[in-house]
Amino acid sequence: MNDHFAASPGDAGSWMAAEGEDRDVIITSRIRLARNVNDFPFKARLSTDECRRLQEHVHEKLSPLRFADDQVYVDLEEVDLLDRELLLESHLISMELARADGPRGVVYSRRRHLSIMVNEEDHLRVQLLGPGQTLSEILREIEQIDQAISENVDYAAHSRFGYLTSCPTNVGTGLRFSVMLHLPALVTTKEIDKEFNAAQKMKLAVRGFYGEGASFVGDFFQVSNQVTLGRSVEDLLQDLLKVVPEIVKHERSVRSLILKDHRNEIEDKVYRALGLLRHARKISSQEALELLSQLRLGVCVGMVDTVDLKSINELLVLTQPAHVQAMETKDLSEEERDVARARYVRQRLGAE
Amino acid sequence: MNDHFAASPGDAGSWMAAEGEDRDVIITSRIRLARNVNDFPFKARLSTDECRRLQEHVHEKLSPLRFADDQVYVDLEEVDLLDRELLLESHLISMELARADGPRGVVYSRRRHLSIMVNEEDHLRVQLLGPGQTLSEILREIEQIDQAISENVDYAAHSRFGYLTSCPTNVGTGLRFSVMLHLPALVTTKEIDKEFNAAQKMKLAVRGFYGEGASFVGDFFQVSNQVTLGRSVEDLLQDLLKVVPEIVKHERSVRSLILKDHRNEIEDKVYRALGLLRHARKISSQEALELLSQLRLGVCVGMVDTVDLKSINELLVLTQPAHVQAMETKDLSEEERDVARARYVRQRLGAE
Repeated sequence: MNDHFAASPGDAGSWMAAEGEDRDVIITSRIRLARNVNDFPFKARLSTDECRRLQEHVHEKLSPLRFADDQVYVDLEEVDLLDRELLLESHLISMELARADGPRGVVYSRRRHLSIMVNEEDHLRVQLLGPGQTLSEILREIEQIDQAISENVDYAAHSRFGYLTSCPTNVGTGLRFSVMLHLPALVTTKEIDKEFNAAQKMKLAVRGFYGEGASFVGDFFQVSNQVTLGRSVEDLLQDLLKVVPEIVKHERSVRSLILKDHRNEIEDKVYRALGLLRHARKISSQEALELLSQLRLGVCVGMVDTVDLKSINELLVLTQPAHVQAMETKDLSEEERDVARARYVRQRLGAE
Repeated sequence: MNDHFAASPGDAGSWMAAEGEDRDVIITSRIRLARNVNDFPFKARLSTDECRRLQEHVHEKLSPLRFADDQVYVDLEEVDLLDRELLLESHLISMELARADGPRGVVYSRRRHLSIMVNEEDHLRVQLLGPGQTLSEILREIEQIDQAISENVDYAAHSRFGYLTSCPTNVGTGLRFSVMLHLPALVTTKEIDKEFNAAQKMKLAVRGFYGEGASFVGDFFQVSNQVTLGRSVEDLLQDLLKVVPEIVKHERSVRSLILKDHRNEIEDKVYRALGLLRHARKISSQEALELLSQLRLGVCVGMVDTVDLKSINELLVLTQPAHVQAMETKDLSEEERDVARARYVRQRLGAE
């Protein structure tokens, strides 16, 4: 266990606080900015030495800045895989940054709402997370952070195109809005496909719990802008604010409908999930996600009142493999991890 | 709900008391005697009128006798299907007697350890049940009952062959010993087939929870003598006393072995069963049997101490469809029964 990060592995971070608007359906909001530094080629064209130079340059420029009172810088080459996986599971770094080689780093807040990745696909990836639907709030905050960075770092930009980015789809604002949605009712009734088609027509992307390339588990979905080129920040925000509330409304109305018509089945599914979470002695991270998803539905519709939404949101992160490993003092086999995960879940859910 | 029987449908009867020798593996012991009345043809050759005459004759002869202080006589033509199914689920009457037409009856004790069926395959089928391995005890008791009946009823018998019965396999003693075994470890490890083969070589029959033609569910098995012709009561008892303790020993040693080598898996399975039983909102009788079987193993090996063996044994009977129906005041659909069953199980297992 590295001291940087998991000093409190049992804390999932403020963005999982189950606060904010529409928290019954929207778990978190996220904004990321892609920025590059002038006079350095894009990441794909950097040699390892140039990567290191860039990393040092950025670190030097960022270190005087205070983005959060609990801010930390980590050189990702210097920490072990477990710490990188912890950061990945906390959505603070990307899979690429966690698993690739080479000079790269991240500035992040210990309460896990902020990260600035260095040497990801772009030189800089600034990211803010907030609980529930908080896109407008975190937009104001990230604009201040962006402004502060730009006063110290010379961003690559073009007077007509806007910010220049490694991948053409990000050129312009370099901004992506995302919300993480919990859509168990739409999944159960297979209504989800309609929403996905509608989202795709609006050029929004739908991804799984862990972003790009991740499979869908536990009825959790990230919806985000796909193309930013030629569009203003306000345009992008409005796209999401047009589609997401529709999805939220649809999910809620289907929740009501299935509760009316299939209450016994839903109640059974929800309570079986609670029973398994409270009693299982071995549980995989995938099963935990699926059961937590069912339990979350039960809590949101007022069927279960002995578990709070915050605990469930936190467990979504804390039951992931690296978090479970981080709570133990020795390396665990997969089976031992499943046993430790089940023990932790029982403890959090007040089981015997 | 008929007043005869289910005055206390929540009481599974003394034979499910989880007492007696080897109760960790042997749930109940059972002896039945096949007897026929002289001067009446065997059941298959009786007209409906003759059946009725026989029933009246037997009833008249038996009614002065007291086999148990809580003894009741039921004319099975006069009670509804639910009551007959209750008696069947309590192992007091056979499937044939529960579901066939025609004049037939049963004398039974309310604590459900004794029954005397009239007009089953034989004119009389006397049966005693006891908890755990109690074959020798109930043999003494059933011999007294047999003696008492024989003083009032003229049994069909042959000086050389012994008692005459409808089916030739029962000729002689007309006696069958059975034990109901719980063999989850032998089933899990597939060692069960060896024991079945050994039993068959000894001319013992292996059946499911509800006897002849019933499928195997929940790792419960009845082992009994198949052929009684030409064999003494002592021979038959010795056959069972040779084989059953071997099965018990084998089951116990495999339980120890899997606990040693696969403790996590077993613990997980046992506690998941407990979690589902304590939380499910809908549960079928088959699933209940299966989960109770897993939980029973956990209780027997000392893994679970918040549930007692008696409750589990009783629930094996009380979760069956007619018992669940009998606890309600109106006719239930299958789904309503599953909901009522789950509610009852939660209540018995002290769930929230």
